[in-house]
Amino acid sequence: MSQKRILIVGGVAGGASCAARSRRLDETAEIIMFDRGPYVSFANCGLPYYVGDVIVDESKLLVANATLFQERFNIQVCLEHNVRTIDRTAKTIEVENLKTGEIRQEAYDALVLSPGAAPIRPPLPGIDLPGIFALRTIPDSRKIRQWITDHQVKTAVVVGGGFIGLEMTENLLHRGIAVTILEQMPQVMPPLDREMVTGVHDLLRSQGVQLCLSDGVERFDPVGDGEGLQITTASGQVHRADLVILAIGVRPENQLARDAGLKIGERGGIQVNEQMQTNDPQIWAVGDAVEVQDFVTQTPIQIPLAGPANRQGRIAADAIAGRPSTFRGVQGTAVCQVFDLTIATTGASEKTLQRLEIPYHKVYLHPGHHVGYFPGAKPIDIKLLFAPDTGKILGVQAVGEEGTAKRVDVIAMALQQGGTVFDLEEAELCYAPQFGAAKDPVNFAGMIAANHLRGDAPLAQWSDPDWRSHLLLDVRDPDEFERGHVPGAVNVPLNSVRDRLATLPSDQPLYVYCQVGQRGYYATRVLRFHGFQAYNLTGGYKTYEAIEAT
Amino acid sequence: MSQKRILIVGGVAGGASCAARSRRLDETAEIIMFDRGPYVSFANCGLPYYVGDVIVDESKLLVANATLFQERFNIQVCLEHNVRTIDRTAKTIEVENLKTGEIRQEAYDALVLSPGAAPIRPPLPGIDLPGIFALRTIPDSRKIRQWITDHQVKTAVVVGGGFIGLEMTENLLHRGIAVTILEQMPQVMPPLDREMVTGVHDLLRSQGVQLCLSDGVERFDPVGDGEGLQITTASGQVHRADLVILAIGVRPENQLARDAGLKIGERGGIQVNEQMQTNDPQIWAVGDAVEVQDFVTQTPIQIPLAGPANRQGRIAADAIAGRPSTFRGVQGTAVCQVFDLTIATTGASEKTLQRLEIPYHKVYLHPGHHVGYFPGAKPIDIKLLFAPDTGKILGVQAVGEEGTAKRVDVIAMALQQGGTVFDLEEAELCYAPQFGAAKDPVNFAGMIAANHLRGDAPLAQWSDPDWRSHLLLDVRDPDEFERGHVPGAVNVPLNSVRDRLATLPSDQPLYVYCQVGQRGYYATRVLRFHGFQAYNLTGGYKTYEAIEAT
Repeated sequence: MSQKRILIVGGVAGGASCAARSRRLDETAEIIMFDRGPYVSFANCGLPYYVGDVIVDESKLLVANATLFQERFNIQVCLEHNVRTIDRTAKTIEVENLKTGEIRQEAYDALVLSPGAAPIRPPLPGIDLPGIFALRTIPDSRKIRQWITDHQVKTAVVVGGGFIGLEMTENLLHRGIAVTILEQMPQVMPPLDREMVTGVHDLLRSQGVQLCLSDGVERFDPVGDGEGLQITTASGQVHRADLVILAIGVRPENQLARDAGLKIGERGGIQVNEQMQTNDPQIWAVGDAVEVQDFVTQTPIQIPLAGPANRQGRIAADAIAGRPSTFRGVQGTAVCQVFDLTIATTGASEKTLQRLEIPYHKVYLHPGHHVGYFPGAKPIDIKLLFAPDTGKILGVQAVGEEGTAKRVDVIAMALQQGGTVFDLEEAELCYAPQFGAAKDPVNFAGMIAANHLRGDAPLAQWSDPDWRSHLLLDVRDPDEFERGHVPGAVNVPLNSVRDRLATLPSDQPLYVYCQVGQRGYYATRVLRFHGFQAYNLTGGYKTYEAIEAT
Repeated sequence: MSQKRILIVGGVAGGASCAARSRRLDETAEIIMFDRGPYVSFANCGLPYYVGDVIVDESKLLVANATLFQERFNIQVCLEHNVRTIDRTAKTIEVENLKTGEIRQEAYDALVLSPGAAPIRPPLPGIDLPGIFALRTIPDSRKIRQWITDHQVKTAVVVGGGFIGLEMTENLLHRGIAVTILEQMPQVMPPLDREMVTGVHDLLRSQGVQLCLSDGVERFDPVGDGEGLQITTASGQVHRADLVILAIGVRPENQLARDAGLKIGERGGIQVNEQMQTNDPQIWAVGDAVEVQDFVTQTPIQIPLAGPANRQGRIAADAIAGRPSTFRGVQGTAVCQVFDLTIATTGASEKTLQRLEIPYHKVYLHPGHHVGYFPGAKPIDIKLLFAPDTGKILGVQAVGEEGTAKRVDVIAMALQQGGTVFDLEEAELCYAPQFGAAKDPVNFAGMIAANHLRGDAPLAQWSDPDWRSHLLLDVRDPDEFERGHVPGAVNVPLNSVRDRLATLPSDQPLYVYCQVGQRGYYATRVLRFHGFQAYNLTGGYKTYEAIEAT
C-alpha cells in the first residue's frame, strides 16, 4: 500500500471529521490539517453561550486539540497556518506559518478544503469602528467578553435576527445588557415562515428586547470619546449602543478555491459532486464553504450546519479511501432555543416552495406537548407542508417549549425516508402523560393533512382570501366568540350546527373555523355529510391571529 | 342511505375513538356506546398520578363525558350498562342497566367490542382482603385515595414492577408512603432487556424503595384488627403493608366474545383481521382485548397501549363505513417516567428475538443527551437491535433523562418506515447545544451498527463468553483502569496502541474495550488495519458493569 498524503485546509467540523475518519480508514496515510486560527475542532455552536457565561470554562469549547489529534490519531495539526494558494498541476499548496512568516510548499495526493464561512461584514460607513464584532471563533468571543468587561457594556445592538442573532440576544440579556435587534426582513428566524414566528416576536419584546424589523443598518458613528456607537438605520432611526454584534449571515470562504480555478456556485459555494469532490478530482471540499443539494427541493443551496458538515467530512474521507459513500443532500434541520421557546424546522419552508414553484399543501395545528389532563402542558405551534398529490412530507416548522424539537426530529426522520402524511397519521410514538398523547402532535399533523387529501375535511387557508367573500362560521362557544373573532364571522357553536343546517346556504362555499381547528373539523364533517361545500380554516383562530400579526 | 345501527361495548380509548369516528363518517347512523362503569373516555394513563396528587382535580381525567358525546357527536352513551350476551344470529345484544336492573335487547348492524383488559388478580390466599387494590378505573383510584386517607397509610407493597407498578411506586412515595416492590422476574420493566434496567434498580433503591426481584407473593394475611396486611413471598420473606397494589398485568376481557363463539387467541385476545373484524363479519373488536400483529416479529401479541387502541377504533369505524383502512400492527412503543429517569422502547427486545429465533445483532451506547461542552449533559443508555443481513432496525431501548423519549420516537419512526441502521447514520436531526450534537445519539447508534455490518469495526458482546478466553485489551487511560476494570484485562491506553503492535499476538482474536465504546472503536480500527483480529466490546466498561449487575 502506497503512503498517501492527505492535506486538509480548515480544522473545524468538516475538516476535523475528515481527518479523523481518513485515519480510521488508512493507518499509513500522512495526514496534515492546517488552520489559520489557534484552535481546531472547537465548538462554534457554543460561542454565544460562552459570551453569555452559560459556558464558563473556555477549554470546554475545545472538542479536541492539536495534541489529541497527534497522539490519538497520528494527525499533524498546523495551527496559525494560512494556506495561500493551490498549484493543481504540481499538486502542492503554499502555506504560510503566521507565527514565523515562513512560507513553504506542501505536496498532496488528496486535498480537502474545509475553510468554512465568514460572517458577512457589509461595507457600511463605520463598519470597522471598535465595538463592532462578529462571532465565529474562540478569539472572537474572547474579544467580545473583554469588550463587555472593559467598557461596562449596558446596551447592545444585534444586527440580524437569525440563529446567532437570537442566541446572542439571549446571552447578552443574560449578562444584563439591554438589546436592540435590527433585522432587515419583516421577521426573525428567516428559515421559518413569517406567521410562525409571531410568538417569537412577542417573546422577545416581553423580555425587553427592542425589536426593529424591516429595517437595516445604514451607518455606524462613534459617540464622543469612546462613549459607544450610534447606529443609523435605513428608516432613519438612530440607536445608541456600547456594543454591536453583526449576525447577518455568512458567506463561503471561497477565495482559495476560486484562485485555484475550482468551480464556484452562484451563491459562492464551492461546487462538489455527491462524493464531495470538486471539479479537480484530487480536491474535495466540505462544510459551510460548499454548495450542497437541498434534499427536498433538489436545488443547490448554501447552508451552514454542523451535522451535515461532519457527514460531508466523513464522505470525503471515504471517497479519498476509494469507498463509494455519497452525500444525500441537506434537509436543513435546525433548532434554536430562545428563552423558553424552541424554534425548530426541517425541510422546505412555504416561501422556498413558492419561490421554486413547487406545489404544496399546508396545515397548521397547536396541540399541547402532552395531554391536557397532566399538569404543565404547553402548546406547540406546528406547520406541516406536504405534496398535494402524494402527501409526501416537504417540511415542518414548530415553535413551542418542551417536546418541540422532538416532533421536528421525528418528522425529519420520516422526511428522510420519503414518508408521507399518511405515515405520520400512523406513527406509534411514546405516550405517557408527561410525554405526549395517545394521538401525538405528529399523528394530529398527519391526520389533518390526510383528512384534507382524502377529501374528508378539505382545508382552507387564512392566507388565501377566498374566505373573505363567503359565509364564515365561527363554531366556538359564544364566550370565545365574544372575546374575539374574525370580522364578519357568524357564531354557530359546534353543538348547534346540526340544528342550524336549514338556515345555511347550500349553493356556495362555507368557511368554518374554531380555536385551533379540531371543532372546525367536526363541523366540516357534519356539513359535508349534508352536502354543504364546507372548508375548515386550518389552525383556527390561533393561526388567524398569528397571520394578522405579521 | 339506510340508517345503520352501530353499538359499541366499552367507552374508553378504542371504543370512544370508534364511536366518534363513526359519527364523522356517517351523520345518519344511530350510534350507542355502552359502558359498565360510570365514565367513558377517561384518561386511564393518568390514574397513578391522581392517586399521587400530581393530578389533583379528578374531573381532569375525563377527556370527554356522556353529555359531550350526545351534544357534540349525537352519540348516545349508556353508562353503568353491562352487555351480557350477544345473539349473533338475531344480531342483538342483551344489556343490563346496572342502576335499575332492567334488562333489554338492542339490535345492531355493526357491533364493536372494546371491553379492555382487567388487572390480573391471582387466586392467592387472602387476595380479597381489604386494602388490596388494582388500578383500572377512576372509582378504583378513588378507593385507593380514600384508603390512604382513612388508614393513614405509611407502607405499601406494589406487586409487579412494570409500567403501572413503577408509576404507582413513584406516586405513593410522592405521598410519603414507603414502598416495597415485589417482582417475580429478575428485573423491573419487562418489555426491556434486563441489563438495560440495572440503572432503574439502582434509582429505585436510592429513592428508598425496597426492591424484591425474582420473588412473588404466596399469600396475604390480615394483621391484628385492621392493622394492615402481611405479605408472604414465595421465597419465605414476610412484608408488612397498610396497602397493596396489584400491578401484575392485565388479561383481555374476553368473556362476552368467548360466550358468543368469537375466535380467541392463545393468550386470550379476541382475534381480528387487519380491519379489526372478528370472525363474525358484523362484529369488530379493538383495544386491549384484541390480539394484534407485532409489526416487527409478525407474530400475534397482546399489548395494552392507548395509541394503538385509538388507531384500531378508527380503523373499525372505517371498516364499518366501508373504507379500506387497515391496521399495520403494533410496534410496542412505550415509555415510563420514574423520578428523573425515562425508560422507553420500541420494537422487539432481545429476549423476544431470542424466543422467536429471529437473527439479530445489537449495539450498546451511552452518549450524552446533548454535547458535553454545554452544562447539564446526561447520558442515555441505548441498546439498538437490527437485522444482521440488511441492517433493518428491529428495536431500541433507552434509559436516561431528558431527550430519551425523543431518540426512541425518532427510531420508532424509522422502524415504521422499514429503516436501517444506515438510515440512522445519515439522519439529520436538530442540533443546538441544548438539544443534541452534530452527531446525535441516533446517528451514533447507526454508525456503530453500520461499522459493525460493514466489517470496519466488528463488535463483540459481553454476553457472549468468547472474550473470556482471549486477550482482553482495556484501552482506557491508566487512572480509569485503576478505578476498576474487567478481571484479566491488560491496559493498553488508546494512544499507545500503535507503539505496542509488536507485542500483540496476531494469530488470535483480540478483544478491546474502553469506557463506552468510542476509544475501543478507534483501537479496533488501528488493530484491524495492521491485520489483527480485533473486536470492540460494544458499550464498553459501562455495559459490562450493567450486565455484571444483573
